[in-house]
Amino acid sequence: MTTLENTLKTILPTTDILDGKIQAHLDDLTKPKGSLGTLEDIAAAYCKARGTVAPALPRKRIYCFGGDHGVVAEGISAFPATVTPQMVMNMLHGGAAINVLAKHAESDLVIVDMGVNDPLEDAPENLCRRKIRSGTDNMATGPAMTETDARKALEVGIELAAEAAADGITLLGTGDMGIGNTTPSTALYCALLDCTPQDITDRGTGLDDEGVQHKAAVITKALEINADRITTPLSTLAAVGGFEIAGIAGLILGGAAHRIPIIVDGFISTAGATVAIALCPGVKDYLLFSHMSQEQGHAHILSKLDVAPILNLGLRLGEGTGAALAMGIVDAALKIYNEMATFSGTGISEKD
Amino acid sequence: MTTLENTLKTILPTTDILDGKIQAHLDDLTKPKGSLGTLEDIAAAYCKARGTVAPALPRKRIYCFGGDHGVVAEGISAFPATVTPQMVMNMLHGGAAINVLAKHAESDLVIVDMGVNDPLEDAPENLCRRKIRSGTDNMATGPAMTETDARKALEVGIELAAEAAADGITLLGTGDMGIGNTTPSTALYCALLDCTPQDITDRGTGLDDEGVQHKAAVITKALEINADRITTPLSTLAAVGGFEIAGIAGLILGGAAHRIPIIVDGFISTAGATVAIALCPGVKDYLLFSHMSQEQGHAHILSKLDVAPILNLGLRLGEGTGAALAMGIVDAALKIYNEMATFSGTGISEKD
Repeated sequence: MTTLENTLKTILPTTDILDGKIQAHLDDLTKPKGSLGTLEDIAAAYCKARGTVAPALPRKRIYCFGGDHGVVAEGISAFPATVTPQMVMNMLHGGAAINVLAKHAESDLVIVDMGVNDPLEDAPENLCRRKIRSGTDNMATGPAMTETDARKALEVGIELAAEAAADGITLLGTGDMGIGNTTPSTALYCALLDCTPQDITDRGTGLDDEGVQHKAAVITKALEINADRITTPLSTLAAVGGFEIAGIAGLILGGAAHRIPIIVDGFISTAGATVAIALCPGVKDYLLFSHMSQEQGHAHILSKLDVAPILNLGLRLGEGTGAALAMGIVDAALKIYNEMATFSGTGISEKD
Repeated sequence: MTTLENTLKTILPTTDILDGKIQAHLDDLTKPKGSLGTLEDIAAAYCKARGTVAPALPRKRIYCFGGDHGVVAEGISAFPATVTPQMVMNMLHGGAAINVLAKHAESDLVIVDMGVNDPLEDAPENLCRRKIRSGTDNMATGPAMTETDARKALEVGIELAAEAAADGITLLGTGDMGIGNTTPSTALYCALLDCTPQDITDRGTGLDDEGVQHKAAVITKALEINADRITTPLSTLAAVGGFEIAGIAGLILGGAAHRIPIIVDGFISTAGATVAIALCPGVKDYLLFSHMSQEQGHAHILSKLDVAPILNLGLRLGEGTGAALAMGIVDAALKIYNEMATFSGTGISEKD
């Protein structure tokens, strides 16, 4: 069996064994029951994923996966494809939003070249070089990649999760950089979640109304031309996905296999999560969805996945920025769980 | 003139003079324009309030004001009034949710006795003793306090803001502890924002449906019996307010007078903000609303005030917990403003 199949077999849904103990502890904290809302839900979900009632504070790492997209040739992005390697270099030198926010969250940040259309020869040593190919093919004229390459890309994510586990990481975040990647993400949602391009196609980094219509038409064409290949989750990922999206999906699978909770960033990362869930529904127990993207289809998709985002800050940047911001809330939730006084310990009066 | 009138005269609405420079800088950061949504809005609002295009990272302090309420005699709270001093002591010893979250936010935390019905003789030295009286009178049978005491309580908040300014604080947060205080808060909203008790009365720390109906009836009675006193913002605060709510309102006024932005906590603190805005509409330019409370009237009230909360985490605890969590987002916003690379500095390609 391959790394992928082994990983899928390793992932177990969480059990309810600890629920009673976790809830009893949350209810013993000196506050009205449930009054910390989402913070209590996050603490409980984290404990369950880790399989503990006494969680240590998370050690955090965000992987930001970069990849280029052949479909940019169809004119579906407001920014030119040259921005992908430029922004990867910006991240490697610390100047991007994700650098600022990962540091703010006290999280490691690893930039991974999954499929950037540039050799990145001048990149500093902190680039994680795992390039599968220099960008996907144009999915509007054929498959974006082969199934072999899709599997390879998933397995890169799985391997990185294993490295993170070996390094003692206990909270992962996902991120992406790839000009044009709202287009394959939207195509994946249509193929895997029964949405239509008309419903969920939006502006990406800044298309106008006409641009959005054109983009939806390109996605429709890609889904039509690849219709025979859209059968399994893996073949669908190959047909209309992207290398960075596959890396995200793999990281999620690998994280879940190691019982590491994963904070999913926005529109692109949720596409990776959708692929991962399609491959293995049990991974959902290990996921926290960081935020509701300004990209208008995202609300619909989160609702289809039956998950609630932690934040709603009008973000539409990707990179892992939403995941980094949500890490601060997860830390807060675990500090509440670990550090507050208890009714049983203080003698404070409970509800009448 | 008194401290209060002097402060009201000192508060100036922010101007638009810096808007162009602030926006130009935000648009030069290496990201699509506006793609960081609320973070960009917060950074701009903070800069305007401080009157600078080059803000330092905030030095933060949360004041949590404690007070008791005579109206608890009407049976409007799920918890007994003895919990107010118990929780104040818990805060002074570091065991409450606000202690954990203020520390997480790297914020000072000051617990202020504005009107707790207990001498707090055994309190440690970190208690800020500014007691006006040992709780309000029962507003269902007469005014909660005299106008003289309402003014005194406002002026305590103003004085604390001045102390914070002298200590170099550049971001304030509000918080409250007072069993029963959703009742006066709801009464203040009805009196100042033209709401009805039926519309906005909710469970507080955990009433059942019957309890909520009874609470709404008590609020209606309080508004009727005090109808002649509900004329000016000050007389309204005296008639149906609370000492901790007055302290919050004063802190907001004093903060704005010193151009210190203030993060407003949840349902109780928004009542303090509503009093402050009624006394001086210009203070609104200095306010950030931290979160949407689970207390159901809050959404309606924020909409009436025409403000958008930063977070929506289902919190209904008070203490300043929402303000503390939002401080992490404000820090992130200012780090984005200060630390990201720029298009003009890096040569990264802009939108086509």
